[in-house]
Amino acid sequence: MRYGWISFTTDYGLADPFVGICHGVLARIAPLSRVIDVTHGITAGALRQGAYTLAQAVVYLPQAVHCAVVDPGVGTSRRGIVLVAREGLLVGPDNGLLLPAAEALGGAVAARELTAEAYRLAEVSATFHGRDVFAPAAGYLANGTDPDELGPDAPLAGLEHMPEPAVRVRAGSLTADVLAVDGFGNVQLAAAAARLAEAGLRTGEAIRVEVGGTGHDAVLGRTFADVAPGALVLLRDSSGLAALAVNGGSAAAQLGVAGDGGSHDRTVTLSPIET
Amino acid sequence: MRYGWISFTTDYGLADPFVGICHGVLARIAPLSRVIDVTHGITAGALRQGAYTLAQAVVYLPQAVHCAVVDPGVGTSRRGIVLVAREGLLVGPDNGLLLPAAEALGGAVAARELTAEAYRLAEVSATFHGRDVFAPAAGYLANGTDPDELGPDAPLAGLEHMPEPAVRVRAGSLTADVLAVDGFGNVQLAAAAARLAEAGLRTGEAIRVEVGGTGHDAVLGRTFADVAPGALVLLRDSSGLAALAVNGGSAAAQLGVAGDGGSHDRTVTLSPIET
Amino acid sequence: MRYGWISFTTDYGLADPFVGICHGVLARIAPLSRVIDVTHGITAGALRQGAYTLAQAVVYLPQAVHCAVVDPGVGTSRRGIVLVAREGLLVGPDNGLLLPAAEALGGAVAARELTAEAYRLAEVSATFHGRDVFAPAAGYLANGTDPDELGPDAPLAGLEHMPEPAVRVRAGSLTADVLAVDGFGNVQLAAAAARLAEAGLRTGEAIRVEVGGTGHDAVLGRTFADVAPGALVLLRDSSGLAALAVNGGSAAAQLGVAGDGGSHDRTVTLSPIET
Repeated sequence: MRYGWISFTTDYGLADPFVGICHGVLARIAPLSRVIDVTHGITAGALRQGAYTLAQAVVYLPQAVHCAVVDPGVGTSRRGIVLVAREGLLVGPDNGLLLPAAEALGGAVAARELTAEAYRLAEVSATFHGRDVFAPAAGYLANGTDPDELGPDAPLAGLEHMPEPAVRVRAGSLTADVLAVDGFGNVQLAAAAARLAEAGLRTGEAIRVEVGGTGHDAVLGRTFADVAPGALVLLRDSSGLAALAVNGGSAAAQLGVAGDGGSHDRTVTLSPIET
Repeated sequence: MRYGWISFTTDYGLADPFVGICHGVLARIAPLSRVIDVTHGITAGALRQGAYTLAQAVVYLPQAVHCAVVDPGVGTSRRGIVLVAREGLLVGPDNGLLLPAAEALGGAVAARELTAEAYRLAEVSATFHGRDVFAPAAGYLANGTDPDELGPDAPLAGLEHMPEPAVRVRAGSLTADVLAVDGFGNVQLAAAAARLAEAGLRTGEAIRVEVGGTGHDAVLGRTFADVAPGALVLLRDSSGLAALAVNGGSAAAQLGVAGDGGSHDRTVTLSPIET
Repeated sequence: MRYGWISFTTDYGLADPFVGICHGVLARIAPLSRVIDVTHGITAGALRQGAYTLAQAVVYLPQAVHCAVVDPGVGTSRRGIVLVAREGLLVGPDNGLLLPAAEALGGAVAARELTAEAYRLAEVSATFHGRDVFAPAAGYLANGTDPDELGPDAPLAGLEHMPEPAVRVRAGSLTADVLAVDGFGNVQLAAAAARLAEAGLRTGEAIRVEVGGTGHDAVLGRTFADVAPGALVLLRDSSGLAALAVNGGSAAAQLGVAGDGGSHDRTVTLSPIET
């Protein structure tokens, strides 16, 4: 099967030529496919941010080979893999990065280790496998190369996983890890918005938000403008997750949650305010 | 009419997957069209910066559906619209963002409200209309869908406008709002460079620049190198507007004009220095 | 000869519409060619960073017209040129920016000055030759226009050069200029990694790193994970150059080397630590 689209997600940033060089490698190998850059702004090495960003994006992308690189273990013995999902292929390091996206694409059905020299660049560096291993693999797969040709079977049960982000719902409170902070300062939690009701949180009502030992007042609303400018609103975000936002401002700044990949060790507790 | 090109301008930034997700939506609906990213670096919510950036860009773009999203009112009752201009289509929120670009494209001739469910995603979130409403509309329009099919007529006289940036020219002085500050620190004014002569400002002569109660010396020149390194030059910029620049440096830093969307409330007064 | 690809490298940044506008100009002139953005994150005016970034990238790109703009002299008498290399064309200012890339593409064989009005926009501004001169030239060249039609011969011997970055190797020490600092904080030196052995530096052994009068300890390794988290490693980077990195951190921060274009005046001395 040929793929007309390749998606590309990394922590390379755009200040350096790394992304452009990978586009060049893709263009040489798969000139008929087009590339969609999901983002290259993942915080350096932030696996969880990369994994959930990719998972939230792939459901809106066309059928594609999805190439993703957040790879603090580059050059070590960590494997490169292609993961065959029901609705697409995923290429990247075997460090857990690809698994949430595979779930979002209907589930993983098989994986192969990327070892075949015919589908890498002739010289493989120790530090830039995006260029030398992952982009070439994605390009050949887009051209229709069978994943089985790229290397030996990598049993699904043996793939590396990341720890799941924590969510705990009880009557009267919901505690969840921060999953991501976007450029507007919106703070996305790991909990599905559908679970807010289980904790007794109701639309239009006042909410207590605790983070890092400090409490803040918010309202459970639907969009930013449901609260006054500068006020905090808890809402269902565009991925269906619970998120904290400030109308015309930054919830991350107001709550003191850093906007970097380190945010994944922050936890937020939400509870109804009795009135 | 089909459009081979879609342009895309937002305040989404590139650190998050929002732009990539919209590219995915466009690729699924209009796979034969290609996307030109004008910029996604508009300051969050900065309508004026977004509107004039788009207006200055569209005249250099091919015939296109221009999709633009700077949308602090997302999820409220503000409408989404397609604006039919003489030389292209514009899609985005009805908040004034699209009007200067419509002028630059020969003027608006009609508008429709984006309400038809067939031309949105199946589920429309309260916070990400770029993905759910505007990108789908742009994609279907690029495919040749008649704008009339996207929703009811939105009379031009009823569209939302922004306040016009202020320009006042008198013999001996020109006062103008700051329109934009670019990444080099060049400070673009709302006044056409052609109006400098009306205020008695002459090429090669010394100029007094007042901003925020402080005066600075500049020269009216043609390019950066017309003044010594580190010195201030007033010139006709590449959009034909009066702009302040520093040879090898940042005029924004030297003048104390912030490089964000808040800059639009700064005003600069230029006058000849009598010698 | 027609080119299906145009590469584009600048110091324009992505916060402004400059890159998008140039894409528009390319799309109008050469709609059948596709554009690869190498990077637009070159530090403003940093010729050396731009030149070596481009040279390291072009060898991974498909056959292309390479358009590059880092142009502090825009609007002065500096010339615009097209440089014909054995394996591609390069378009940009005659300020040394294109020469290392021409070497990487097999060497320059001829150059023409970009003066023909037929291959520029109708109006040429004093400050935005990327839009008005270089993108149009790149587009027409991609369409198959003979470089000879773009203007008079520009003898290779008369082209502007930049100073070569300094590298000095002796028994017991290697001194080299910093060539670039990437977004991960990796510090790339101007010396080929192959020259480390000449200075007595051996893989797996301890290294003394002197920069700005301060000494640091490092190990000559192969990848980041060859040292403990937070420790400094000297390695062969993905361009074959010697580079300093920190496992999970920023070598630039640890060494006090700024990540901007000013870094090119920093020099690093490496020597074996006697044990």
